[in-house]
Amino acid sequence: MNIILGLIGDAERVMITSHENPDGDAIGSMLALGLGIEQTGKEVVYYNKDGVPETLRFLPHSERVVNSLDAVEGTFDLVFAVDCTGTDRAGSEFEDFLKTGRCGKVVIMDHHQTNNSSADFHLLDPHSSSTGIIVYSVLKRLPVEITRDIADNIYTTIIGDTGSFRYSNTNPDTFRVAAELVECGADPARISEALFENEPLRKLKLISLALPTLEVSGDNKLASVYVDKGMFDLSGARREDTEGIVNIPRSIKGVEVAVFFREEAGNDHSLWKVSFRSKGQVDVAKIAESFGGGGHYRAAGCSLAGDLGEVKKRIFESLREVLP
Amino acid sequence: MNIILGLIGDAERVMITSHENPDGDAIGSMLALGLGIEQTGKEVVYYNKDGVPETLRFLPHSERVVNSLDAVEGTFDLVFAVDCTGTDRAGSEFEDFLKTGRCGKVVIMDHHQTNNSSADFHLLDPHSSSTGIIVYSVLKRLPVEITRDIADNIYTTIIGDTGSFRYSNTNPDTFRVAAELVECGADPARISEALFENEPLRKLKLISLALPTLEVSGDNKLASVYVDKGMFDLSGARREDTEGIVNIPRSIKGVEVAVFFREEAGNDHSLWKVSFRSKGQVDVAKIAESFGGGGHYRAAGCSLAGDLGEVKKRIFESLREVLP
Repeated sequence: MNIILGLIGDAERVMITSHENPDGDAIGSMLALGLGIEQTGKEVVYYNKDGVPETLRFLPHSERVVNSLDAVEGTFDLVFAVDCTGTDRAGSEFEDFLKTGRCGKVVIMDHHQTNNSSADFHLLDPHSSSTGIIVYSVLKRLPVEITRDIADNIYTTIIGDTGSFRYSNTNPDTFRVAAELVECGADPARISEALFENEPLRKLKLISLALPTLEVSGDNKLASVYVDKGMFDLSGARREDTEGIVNIPRSIKGVEVAVFFREEAGNDHSLWKVSFRSKGQVDVAKIAESFGGGGHYRAAGCSLAGDLGEVKKRIFESLREVLP
Repeated sequence: MNIILGLIGDAERVMITSHENPDGDAIGSMLALGLGIEQTGKEVVYYNKDGVPETLRFLPHSERVVNSLDAVEGTFDLVFAVDCTGTDRAGSEFEDFLKTGRCGKVVIMDHHQTNNSSADFHLLDPHSSSTGIIVYSVLKRLPVEITRDIADNIYTTIIGDTGSFRYSNTNPDTFRVAAELVECGADPARISEALFENEPLRKLKLISLALPTLEVSGDNKLASVYVDKGMFDLSGARREDTEGIVNIPRSIKGVEVAVFFREEAGNDHSLWKVSFRSKGQVDVAKIAESFGGGGHYRAAGCSLAGDLGEVKKRIFESLREVLP
């Protein structure tokens, strides 16, 4: 920690980046760290390969994040890659930039359990619920005021990575930091609203059409829902609006594996994107892999051609073999 | 507070009740308070008119709650009505019981903004996110250990009444108490799964019937959903299964006030329970009060007799007057 504080103290120009396909922890950590460092009179450039997703544009100062290094000039004494298990997670443009000789020391700040130790210095704490909490501990040791903007950004990192304090990475420190951030002006209701209560009406219409397709089998351990092209047409919903629908069958008592079938666009033949969620007893990555897809133990996906009845039959048969 | 502590110290037999149609705050507060008082050597009877809903039966010692006073014998030095805006909220059987002369002092513990002051003593704190937090402050002043069972119960009151730290009643104290409870053994992930990923299938069927009733008006600032008797029959769902349905219209982007209409049981005439949720610009407690109900600024409710069209018209007219 002291080395990192010393590096910040000595630096004049700082670059901060985070992993591609950024989430709340990636963007919130970048912004909070940079806003704090700026208070000490340094210049900060914020970079993320994919920019800030629409759902996170409510974050204070998120408009400052650039998604290209083309227009970035000069050298940097200090470069941070936050919420990254390695510098490669920030994308190839950033990795190439590191090789230009325009960067001084590179520091990774991260809370993931595994880290490939690809930087000069590492500030790692797997106990922290989010990387933002590590950023907070750094800022508290600098002559920096935790402004409302900083507090909002760090609070968002926590909400995002704990699913609003629901996941098992929620610990007493998570709550203590949250308490302090709210005292500094972070607004739990406004942030939760921005993250969770901002659904387009068309998505609700789509869910309303999808819910009657709910099917439960395998001793109630298997639940599925589907959305076909007709439902997209009827609701005006987009493919991206199906985010989170798989959590509906997952919420049912006793269900071990939830499956969501989404018919893909295109007219020549029927193609279905299949998303799996497991509550922990079934490794759905294995199932997805057996159909040419992939993912994690509890969340995975694949694509199958064919009519829905056929696709469902193949998936369900495969799942029933591994259900507890 | 000191009077209440004195009353607990002097009592030998204590009855604790909470409001009808109990939620997590009602049951969790009852159990936490009682389990604490039992540690000081007193006998406690737990009563709720409607018993413990299935979704809350994971709460430690919830099996001790009785839903009838018929078999309850003897007298009580001290009676608590927790999470109640008045003793009437515990139901008529309880109100009749108070008149039998078998009860000593009656104390209300509550965090609602309005309270009809119907008891002998009141411990009210609208700043507390849940009544459970008031219970916690009482237990901390008694020679009581905050066991894991007590911590789980109080933690559940917080999760329930803040929607997992999402509502505007979430404040630094909410988080500080949560931190202490987790240190005492409360398990955020287990409780969250029990509360949010444990829905009976019949509830999903009910939601599936309710969603097509989604109605958006007032420049998309007002959204409503209803559930009538027919839907309960068709889905096999119970009244308690409607918990949280009001959050569906509330989740829509731009919606300021969400309303949920639920038809009550009974055959002689139509009666509707109306739940309001505001995103912050409208004080729905005022609206609910104008119809004889009550609640908080952002979450309130009332009951209206009449057919649905009529009830909706009255409510919507009243809301449109105050919409921004």
